[in-house]
Order: sequence, then structure tokens, then C-alpha cells
Amino acid sequence: MSKLTVSFGLRVREQRKLKQISQEKLAFLSNIDRSYMGRIERGEVNITIEKIYELAKSLDVSVKDLLPDDV
Amino acid sequence: MSKLTVSFGLRVREQRKLKQISQEKLAFLSNIDRSYMGRIERGEVNITIEKIYELAKSLDVSVKDLLPDDV
Repeated sequence: MSKLTVSFGLRVREQRKLKQISQEKLAFLSNIDRSYMGRIERGEVNITIEKIYELAKSLDVSVKDLLPDDV
Repeated sequence: MSKLTVSFGLRVREQRKLKQISQEKLAFLSNIDRSYMGRIERGEVNITIEKIYELAKSLDVSVKDLLPDDV
């Protein structure tokens, strides 16, 4: 967990709520285990580039919208 | 290895060459093992968000400059 992963997780959650998608559905759409999805949103996961792009695709946002400004 | 990781690796290499930094130096600056640095540039690594930001910082570029458009 770091400032970066926490910031990333908050952005994922924000975009998910804007799109009115449940955490469970986002996990399913992104081929991510549901409990792991929770950990991502809480900033507990040092997520990989492949999963970042999968989440962006599922949320129909640009990857750049999910990434914090350089920290 | 995927289209995404290959594209990311090429961007890292391009920015590194523009800055005239050796692969060895970039690895050192980013706390990345030298052989792992080679694998990143060849697209063999599903890199984590923490390392993406470390590389961007070492290269003095925005993270967004290293990330391929949504693939």
C-alpha cells in the first residue's frame, strides 16, 4: 500500500460509481477476482499494467483517467 | 508478453535513448535489477504501477508519456 496505489484505487472507485457499476460487476468484466477487486480499490495492490488496461476498458475510460498525476 | 507490454517497453526505450541514459543507469536510478530492466524494454514483463512511476521519475517524463494509447 502506498500513496500511489491508494490514489489509483480511489480513481477506480470514482469512475465505477460514475458509471453506476457494482464492484462485483467490474470485477467480472475485468476478469479479476471479486476480493482482489476490493483490495485494488482500497489501494492494497501493486497492480500490473495489464490489469490497469482491463479496468479502463471495462469502465470505458482512458487509462490516463485512472492514473494519478506523477506522485 | 503482450502487445501492451511490448508497446510499453518500446516507449521506455525510446524515452531512455532521447535522454541518453544507459539501460544500466536507468535500472540503477529506478531500483530495478539490470536484467529485469532488459526484460521490461523487451516487453516480457507485466510491470507494476509502482515501477511504472519509478521509471517515469527516473526518465523525467510523465507517466502518460510511457503509456500506450488504449489498446
